Amino acid sequence: MNILLLSGGSGKRLWPLSNEQRSKQFIRIFKNENGDYESMVERIYGSIRKVDPDARITVATAKSQVSEIRNRLGNDVGISVEPARRDTFPAIVLGCVFLHEVQSVGEDEPVVVCPVDPYVEDDYFRALKDLSDLASKGEANLTLMGMEPTYPSEKYGYIIPENADSVSRVNCFKEKPDEKTAEEYIAKGALWNGGIFAFKMSYILKKAHELIDFTDYDDLYSKYENLTKISFDYAVVEKEESIQVMRFNGLWKDLGTWNTMTEAMTEEYVGDVSMGSNNSNVHVINELNVPILAMGLKDVVIAASPDGILVSDKHESSYIKPYVDKLDSRVMFAEKSWGNYRVIDVNPGSMTIKVTLKAGNKMNYHSHELRDEIWTIVSGTGRTIVDGMEQVVHAGDVITIQAGCKHTIIAETELQVIEVQLGKEISVDDKRKFELN
Amino acid sequence: MNILLLSGGSGKRLWPLSNEQRSKQFIRIFKNENGDYESMVERIYGSIRKVDPDARITVATAKSQVSEIRNRLGNDVGISVEPARRDTFPAIVLGCVFLHEVQSVGEDEPVVVCPVDPYVEDDYFRALKDLSDLASKGEANLTLMGMEPTYPSEKYGYIIPENADSVSRVNCFKEKPDEKTAEEYIAKGALWNGGIFAFKMSYILKKAHELIDFTDYDDLYSKYENLTKISFDYAVVEKEESIQVMRFNGLWKDLGTWNTMTEAMTEEYVGDVSMGSNNSNVHVINELNVPILAMGLKDVVIAASPDGILVSDKHESSYIKPYVDKLDSRVMFAEKSWGNYRVIDVNPGSMTIKVTLKAGNKMNYHSHELRDEIWTIVSGTGRTIVDGMEQVVHAGDVITIQAGCKHTIIAETELQVIEVQLGKEISVDDKRKFELN
Repeated sequence: MNILLLSGGSGKRLWPLSNEQRSKQFIRIFKNENGDYESMVERIYGSIRKVDPDARITVATAKSQVSEIRNRLGNDVGISVEPARRDTFPAIVLGCVFLHEVQSVGEDEPVVVCPVDPYVEDDYFRALKDLSDLASKGEANLTLMGMEPTYPSEKYGYIIPENADSVSRVNCFKEKPDEKTAEEYIAKGALWNGGIFAFKMSYILKKAHELIDFTDYDDLYSKYENLTKISFDYAVVEKEESIQVMRFNGLWKDLGTWNTMTEAMTEEYVGDVSMGSNNSNVHVINELNVPILAMGLKDVVIAASPDGILVSDKHESSYIKPYVDKLDSRVMFAEKSWGNYRVIDVNPGSMTIKVTLKAGNKMNYHSHELRDEIWTIVSGTGRTIVDGMEQVVHAGDVITIQAGCKHTIIAETELQVIEVQLGKEISVDDKRKFELN
Repeated sequence: MNILLLSGGSGKRLWPLSNEQRSKQFIRIFKNENGDYESMVERIYGSIRKVDPDARITVATAKSQVSEIRNRLGNDVGISVEPARRDTFPAIVLGCVFLHEVQSVGEDEPVVVCPVDPYVEDDYFRALKDLSDLASKGEANLTLMGMEPTYPSEKYGYIIPENADSVSRVNCFKEKPDEKTAEEYIAKGALWNGGIFAFKMSYILKKAHELIDFTDYDDLYSKYENLTKISFDYAVVEKEESIQVMRFNGLWKDLGTWNTMTEAMTEEYVGDVSMGSNNSNVHVINELNVPILAMGLKDVVIAASPDGILVSDKHESSYIKPYVDKLDSRVMFAEKSWGNYRVIDVNPGSMTIKVTLKAGNKMNYHSHELRDEIWTIVSGTGRTIVDGMEQVVHAGDVITIQAGCKHTIIAETELQVIEVQLGKEISVDDKRKFELN
């Protein structure tokens, strides 16, 4: 099975655990069989591998998510990097051309496309395999998966099939309706459109060249930023005549808000949390290193990270976005391919961060024009290079870097560094990168 | 007016804003006329000064609170330092002997004793002055203030007066009753016992020498730790025949729980807080430097400090103590006479703190046996002394202190220092103090 997972943008509806650097698919809140916490992306990847150990899995995503995906999924996963966000049609085309040219997926092979972030169980992945097999048979150009509705939702588009068979031709598509209209659709046997498609590679390549002027993957990649933003539904699905839908009636939840996210949590809380008396339907996720005590609450979600603290009624949490838009958007925590960093103190004229470099990793060789930096190594061993001078460092060593000095640090074992930045202007943009000779 | 304010212990019922270093009376949540936030102790001190500019105000308190009281109230306030906690009779005796011997309050002068932490308005302080005048007249050995009950509370002891006059002889005292009994007391004209007493100095000195074997203040101070723990009510009030009570029917709230504390707050929130949609009777106090967003909550208090985060139904917050007892009790933030410190990162083998020294202040000259320390000055100017070597320091300077080195830092302007502590065992007890030559 060739599967292209669409990994979407940041989204503020799961603030403070999603930010510009981290999307909801990376939040570790699902306890797996080994008792470890895993994120949606780890969960979905592992489940696909379980159903189909030979599946060729590729994630289509923005550059800013690449580190986090490599950290979570390792080097076996393919990554189709989008140079910009251009909606699902360009993303799927780029991903498929990547699969075809870079990963040598043949024109007659089927490809399944689905979002990376629904909350599902193993039957969903078996259904994806069925979908792939249906596409392989070629009875229709496009095969969709349609979810049996559990209530007349206003959040989804609807697919109206011709009949109630497990696989049926599609009669038509309907935009997100109001509740009453949704009830009418459901009475006619309509299904939720979950954005899950399967087709043969030849089909998508043909559509791609019809709608986009490009020669090969590199050409498409270079033009990507200027492509028109358009969804795959709008560009392809709704115009296709030869189209069928496969019914799916297993668990499928869109984890777009804290309300639905906490429904999927296997534990009441994650992190340093004390549940006091008389809590009912309360979920707490604490990524801070101070305890949270929750008492006497009902239908409440608490989420705390270095970016902030949310305390919300679960239903009300759907309306979070405008309030988050107004907050200071400085990213206080980020995971990177080389480790992570966390802002621990901010002052006028200085900022203190804690940097963790994984063993074998290093920072870029870089300099800052407007700030000095002082590194205190608090654990691990490694080497620093400052203006070409190399030095072995271990816990307790202090390295002073004046503004303008080129510098890097290379972790031999895992390294933890307290970095004090000092300067009138401290900005992430004040950074020049250099090659190490 | 001579007034002795009893400043009680730490108390966990207002966690995470009160800890071993800081009691509820120091939490700054009341906005004053200038728009600044002030604490209970500042509020009560300012109000007494307003009613009686010449009042001689003395606070009876533990050693651990002395710094904070000096910070908040300055040098005009008298402080009777208790070498240990021995309940209210020893505390009042020590305070009065301090007033008599150290502050030269005469034997014929009245003294008013009251707790530092009720939430009251100006009429309360005028009533204290009336109480002092009544004591001065000498019509009874003891004059109490009794609060007109607003409901049949089970939290207070009751005073049964002989009649309903504004000042009446006391018939008897009743222990904290159940609600039904409280109703019966109130029907008989009973008053709440708020622990507010006035008497002449000669009276308390006589009682003191009757019950405690001591010669003078220094002798009493040296014996203090071995005195029997006993309340003033039990040792004196309940045994006294010549006793009267003055009725008080103004605002008087015991701010012992988050529920009552938030009732007294003048604003919905203090600190970096966003109030989202549909909150009702929600109060937020945020001492962290990340934003809190509250949405769709009802009757909830949120309090966040470097010690932890409480999210509780207001009523339920009364039952907080056993849960706080179970939490790690490391103090992450403390205010001192010289400034404050805050723990910003904890690792096995290292701890990073931020120290702020007020201009003109210095640390003790001290050393640690088991840890190195690295100071990075992030703002201000001052001097460091390390093993006798003095050095001028300013923002950007780094000072390395090996285990065993004596060291101090003296702030010329306000100084902020990031201190990284490194060692196998990092403990507040690992500290030796020295004299600076």
